[in-house]
Amino acid sequence: MTDRSPSARSSDRARPDVAVVGAGPIGLAIAWRCAARGLRVVVHDAAPGSGASAVAAGMLSPVAEAYFGERQLTELLLASAARWPAFAAELTETTGAAIGYRTEGTLMVGLTGDDLAEARRLWAYQQGLGLPVTPLRPSELRDREPALAPRVRGGALAPTDHQVDPRLLVPALRTAAQRAGAALVPQAVRQLSDVDARVTVVAAGCGAAALTGLPVRPVKGQILRLRAPDGVAPGFRHVIRGYADGEHVYLVPRSDGEVVLGATVEERSDTTVTAGAVQRLLRAGVDLLPELAEYDLVEAVAGLRPGTPDNAPILGPLPGRPDVLAATGHHRHGIVLTPITADLIADLVLGGVPDPLLAPLRADRFGAAGPAGPAMAASGGPEPTMEGDRWS
Amino acid sequence: MTDRSPSARSSDRARPDVAVVGAGPIGLAIAWRCAARGLRVVVHDAAPGSGASAVAAGMLSPVAEAYFGERQLTELLLASAARWPAFAAELTETTGAAIGYRTEGTLMVGLTGDDLAEARRLWAYQQGLGLPVTPLRPSELRDREPALAPRVRGGALAPTDHQVDPRLLVPALRTAAQRAGAALVPQAVRQLSDVDARVTVVAAGCGAAALTGLPVRPVKGQILRLRAPDGVAPGFRHVIRGYADGEHVYLVPRSDGEVVLGATVEERSDTTVTAGAVQRLLRAGVDLLPELAEYDLVEAVAGLRPGTPDNAPILGPLPGRPDVLAATGHHRHGIVLTPITADLIADLVLGGVPDPLLAPLRADRFGAAGPAGPAMAASGGPEPTMEGDRWS
Repeated sequence: MTDRSPSARSSDRARPDVAVVGAGPIGLAIAWRCAARGLRVVVHDAAPGSGASAVAAGMLSPVAEAYFGERQLTELLLASAARWPAFAAELTETTGAAIGYRTEGTLMVGLTGDDLAEARRLWAYQQGLGLPVTPLRPSELRDREPALAPRVRGGALAPTDHQVDPRLLVPALRTAAQRAGAALVPQAVRQLSDVDARVTVVAAGCGAAALTGLPVRPVKGQILRLRAPDGVAPGFRHVIRGYADGEHVYLVPRSDGEVVLGATVEERSDTTVTAGAVQRLLRAGVDLLPELAEYDLVEAVAGLRPGTPDNAPILGPLPGRPDVLAATGHHRHGIVLTPITADLIADLVLGGVPDPLLAPLRADRFGAAGPAGPAMAASGGPEPTMEGDRWS
Repeated sequence: MTDRSPSARSSDRARPDVAVVGAGPIGLAIAWRCAARGLRVVVHDAAPGSGASAVAAGMLSPVAEAYFGERQLTELLLASAARWPAFAAELTETTGAAIGYRTEGTLMVGLTGDDLAEARRLWAYQQGLGLPVTPLRPSELRDREPALAPRVRGGALAPTDHQVDPRLLVPALRTAAQRAGAALVPQAVRQLSDVDARVTVVAAGCGAAALTGLPVRPVKGQILRLRAPDGVAPGFRHVIRGYADGEHVYLVPRSDGEVVLGATVEERSDTTVTAGAVQRLLRAGVDLLPELAEYDLVEAVAGLRPGTPDNAPILGPLPGRPDVLAATGHHRHGIVLTPITADLIADLVLGGVPDPLLAPLRADRFGAAGPAGPAMAASGGPEPTMEGDRWS
């Protein structure tokens, strides 16, 4: 990408090469990668890390998240997960910060016979893609994780699905970006004309809709944080994903005693915590791991994921705006997709040949519902809730 | 009670007549009543209203709370509830403050056939005491409260069981006490010798154990606060008390949209909110009133009630210490018992003939486990958890 873009101006010496809108994991990782490659980078965010990442569980689960009809997305998740070990190592080496990267693997379980039947359909699909999913006999399941309820009917292991702690990841990425020379401006960007740079990267999560007119809608998620009593580590080591009487939940244990229990997926744009959602999450969690009943309930929060019509992110230039790159729409996959998003966008900024992975993620793939130029962006773009109605 | 008590000293002009330890509803109401009768009153509390009242629901329910084997306590609850209308009117008139006093009555319901059978046993007992309990046909129940779940099997009305909002009551009582001339000292009292007055009233809830050696133990209660969406009032008007698959819960609707959902009764002295308790409360609440599933969950807290071996309060002088009056041990009944406690204790302070109601509430009724003198009080008295073990 060069300075021949429409918004190029004469005062190039003070002007940054890249303005990143949004200091969540995606924006900060892009800033880090760009700054590390010698570009002048400014990141704009009034409240860094306050979006979807603040409520994310941090599962790196391309295998367990390989769902029917999302094969292309699965390829992307796998490609990014493959970059996580090196990404985590580099980040920790650069900053000295712990980010809670753990590799115990993920156990997928079914509580009842019906739950297990549903889970087995998915495991068969995942195995059909050649993914590492190992069904376990009940005795093997309990040997691996004795804390599981005796009535859990069966399970399977996805050994390559790992985890990281998003609330540690964001400050680590911020440190890395700043050490590489990126500047953080603690101000909100209301419209694209608020920033001035050779290239603008919109990594604003749900906020991308109003800035760009892209069909990004908020998908509400409610999540709980529990804590093992007496400050000890949770009584289980694996990430546990389970179907429990039809409810699909996950449990992510952290070394400090925290357990993340989530998450609802709701086509709503409010962030209230509702009694019914909390009850359903707790019921499913306690049914799968009875010891959770004695855990402290320390937090119940709701956040908004940036969803797209096909559940895949939008990565690349806005039509007619080669100087504006979208990096949004990561939905439930923002954490696992952070490394590959940062690499692909940094490549685009530096004007390299677009990676073939980007072809299905282009901003113009939604046709008429696609992105708007500056005029439409200034008017706020389509209402997220209207789009949500259409896609739900 | 006169100034011939053992701790009477010469500097009587500056010395208060009454030192009240504890600025919860009980302590503040006593201070108000004493000050209004011309006594010099000082109330000591580092954090007024931060004890059991902060998590209390505020039900004034002598009928619904009339349990087997507690006949004497029921008499006391009825006598105090009878004073509530005048008490509330006087408090509101004196202070101009709203205290959320509502008189819609209480609906007692059973979710399943088993729940209803258990409830009916209790209603028959309550009717046998001559209390106003009116069984309702299912259609009558739904006419009164259409929000109840269709599967609720049956119910009864206790029209004289009312409610007040404890979080409004405490500041109102504080204003009333101060306007009557009582002084508030925002300091904790660690031992009785920290205060100097002709008469000391220990209204310190669970803190009374360490101060007096009385067998007051903490009884943990977890409680939730929900809020109807969009700022409207809850979709039900009565206090609802229900058995739901063996779980006993209550739901208290407030005009501002809040619903209090409680409460656990646990022989524990911690104040952590546990996942299992929240799940059970929510499950029972949503089963009884399905619309609660869409309510915001705005608070989950735990508090400690001051329990006694026979569940009745302790009102009167410590043995050998006629200058120290206990007013504690109100367990789950502190709010309903506030008016009568204040009147009875104020009478004692002023040296009147003890009301016959006080006879079964004396501080020496627990025999060897009874109160200690200053020496034992200084050593902290028996450990609440040890006592808890014995009584659980």
